[in-house]
Amino acid sequence: MKTVIAGALSALLLSAAVTAQAQVSPEDQIELRKAGFSYMAWNMGKLKAQVIEGSVEYNQEQVEAAANTIAAIANSGIGALFGPGTEKDVGHQRTRVDPALFDNMPDVAKLAGNMGTAANTLAAEAKTGDKDAIRVAFGEVGKTCKACHEKYRLD
Amino acid sequence: MKTVIAGALSALLLSAAVTAQAQVSPEDQIELRKAGFSYMAWNMGKLKAQVIEGSVEYNQEQVEAAANTIAAIANSGIGALFGPGTEKDVGHQRTRVDPALFDNMPDVAKLAGNMGTAANTLAAEAKTGDKDAIRVAFGEVGKTCKACHEKYRLD
Repeated sequence: MKTVIAGALSALLLSAAVTAQAQVSPEDQIELRKAGFSYMAWNMGKLKAQVIEGSVEYNQEQVEAAANTIAAIANSGIGALFGPGTEKDVGHQRTRVDPALFDNMPDVAKLAGNMGTAANTLAAEAKTGDKDAIRVAFGEVGKTCKACHEKYRLD
Repeated sequence: MKTVIAGALSALLLSAAVTAQAQVSPEDQIELRKAGFSYMAWNMGKLKAQVIEGSVEYNQEQVEAAANTIAAIANSGIGALFGPGTEKDVGHQRTRVDPALFDNMPDVAKLAGNMGTAANTLAAEAKTGDKDAIRVAFGEVGKTCKACHEKYRLD
């Protein structure tokens, strides 16, 4: 477990270093992290419709594509987009982040690591086409989203 | 090649159907497609810094994560977000799409298929860590972005 946390933290810090060097402005960081989370949410919605609600017919190719996208974004180093200066609205970008997040980076890294792990499991289950397993894995990813929102997202 | 095109077109149409059923509003479709493309662009930027410019030190884990994200989004069915009513600005969302895109869906599907194929190659090369091969694959993805922008994105 320590290794997982250390790995997640390390990834977060390394990515932060890259962002610093690539000089993504705080305004752009907020825009990009919202973009990443929105795009994950859209893909979660596709899975929800197909494996939870059944409001859309199950399509193996689409379910795999959606799960892969969620896993890739979850593991893309999105933590790097919570750099200095992104604690509050900047320019045209509004953020719902709780500034407390920036004082609790080890905890955030742990939550982010949990999301990445759960999303990888979802992507793996999606490949099998086992709907029950996908349903469970989808629920686990949802819990990791919620865990961070409840702690670090303002209403 | 015909199979590739047919596959891409099929994926595009199937995804469009899902979106229609999941009732994503035209305004949200524009927001989400911009989110997906922006997030891809951020990850292309990370690769550019690490394998083209060398302005950021090469990091195998980050390069793989970036390439995986680009491939996943490219194959996520983003074409579904070009639904009816998204030809021009809607509500708070501005779009640079050329309305001509909506009259040329088979061509768009071909270009999208090319992007997906090139992005999959990039992700595969990223795993090998062969910088020369990654550089070439990165260039090929860039060409597929540009091909669509030149035809269907307004300045």
